[in-house]
Amino acid sequence: MKDVVIVGVGPAGISAAIYLKRAGMNPLVIGQDFGTLKSYTGKIENYYGFENPISGDTLIENGIKQAKNLDVEILLDSVISLDQEDGHFIIKTIQHQFTSKSVILATGKKRLSLSIPGFNQFKAKGISFCATCDGYFFRRKKIAIVGCGHYMINELEVLSQINKDITIFTNGHELIDDVDFPVVKSKIVKFVGEQKLSHIETEDGESYEVQGAFIAIGTPSSIDFATKLGVIIDKNNISVDQNYQTNIDGLFAIGDVIGGKLQIAKAVYDGMMVADQINNYIKHKI
Amino acid sequence: MKDVVIVGVGPAGISAAIYLKRAGMNPLVIGQDFGTLKSYTGKIENYYGFENPISGDTLIENGIKQAKNLDVEILLDSVISLDQEDGHFIIKTIQHQFTSKSVILATGKKRLSLSIPGFNQFKAKGISFCATCDGYFFRRKKIAIVGCGHYMINELEVLSQINKDITIFTNGHELIDDVDFPVVKSKIVKFVGEQKLSHIETEDGESYEVQGAFIAIGTPSSIDFATKLGVIIDKNNISVDQNYQTNIDGLFAIGDVIGGKLQIAKAVYDGMMVADQINNYIKHKI
Repeated sequence: MKDVVIVGVGPAGISAAIYLKRAGMNPLVIGQDFGTLKSYTGKIENYYGFENPISGDTLIENGIKQAKNLDVEILLDSVISLDQEDGHFIIKTIQHQFTSKSVILATGKKRLSLSIPGFNQFKAKGISFCATCDGYFFRRKKIAIVGCGHYMINELEVLSQINKDITIFTNGHELIDDVDFPVVKSKIVKFVGEQKLSHIETEDGESYEVQGAFIAIGTPSSIDFATKLGVIIDKNNISVDQNYQTNIDGLFAIGDVIGGKLQIAKAVYDGMMVADQINNYIKHKI
Repeated sequence: MKDVVIVGVGPAGISAAIYLKRAGMNPLVIGQDFGTLKSYTGKIENYYGFENPISGDTLIENGIKQAKNLDVEILLDSVISLDQEDGHFIIKTIQHQFTSKSVILATGKKRLSLSIPGFNQFKAKGISFCATCDGYFFRRKKIAIVGCGHYMINELEVLSQINKDITIFTNGHELIDDVDFPVVKSKIVKFVGEQKLSHIETEDGESYEVQGAFIAIGTPSSIDFATKLGVIIDKNNISVDQNYQTNIDGLFAIGDVIGGKLQIAKAVYDGMMVADQINNYIKHKI
């Protein structure tokens, strides 16, 4: 069992890892999707210490190399689920599974948005981001899962235990694995309904009746993990106390996901500060 | 009149300048002595974003260049005094004088210590760091000023208004300017006394009777400036409120001087955070 797993390889996660490592702990950092910073195409010029503007890509890569040079264990893999069991956490990636006494969520704040007509209109009116949270509401309904990768497969496993009338929409992509459910590969062109979602229309002219559509594209964000575990979310930020701990014992969050300034300097600071708290938590955990 | 002058060109001061500049203000940053970081001879490996360990020197220089690239005005000069007058601040450097509505102290925490026998023993028992604070207590006594540069000259001006029995000890260095007081160039080998300081002994075998010795070597620190202005100091940290403001309206402090973690990540964070407060302060100042 690990003492601490950090989900996210951006400034917050790596900064936490560096401080934990230097404090004598052995954090495991897992991440693949680099969140907002990686996708930020502009140059960064307000993070102290760089004579010339630096790209998000370069900074992320520097940070990963910096941690590796300090012998921090980094796994470049996607975390697809986070669960709790018997007082510890189970972290599933595409290839591996880990157990840990504590977890730091630091994946950044990117929340997927689809630029498809009707997407915003039917959010929480049929469109959901969490199979575990909302699956039960749709247990006798026709549902869709939108996605094509490991995260979709994971959400499908959850949903298929409570519902058999499931169609997978890959939205133009190839599915990574075989599934026992109908698959629609044509791109989605519209989410349709009156008060609530009732149909999905695709590029090939088809219209599919669905009451629920679960979005599971790419990899889940910290907010997704947190939501599933019952963490208090306030205005799309994970709520933490002054020690960066959520309402779930042993689950911490830092960086953009907890709100405040969405700045590298703040993410790095959070990483430094949470290290003390993790140390303290592990020391007192029975 | 400037809106804001930042004293210190280390991570805290430069980070504040970058954020202020990008928020549309025109901070003036003044500094020469780079404090603890510059004198830190080891390599820094825990500040996020650098693949390989970086020296304090290089980081400081990067930061100054970074700010200059953003057209921040930087004056590499020593601030030798900071005073208040008619609701604004007067900042004196060796070459210039500025007035400003607000000041951010960010000089780092280096406090000079002399490895001379008796130095620690007679601190506050004859040895003082502040002419303005303690000069009056020694107004009919024999006093020494230890130093050789602009800061010493500035302290001498203050002391010479209340005391004429002053000897300057350059501790082996050359004096930068002529003065109307006796000068001892021989190195100090011992501070001597019983309960309180009574003599200074020098390398050439002389012993000088003094009741007070004012230390004014190099440049004053933020703590020195703050002390003179009547700022509350707690355990050798400048006390600030949650907005980084001291008990003196318009006087802010960030970085190592306010305590907390003496880390670059924290200094940089402070710099980012204080920028909002300065903006807000200037906006509401009549």
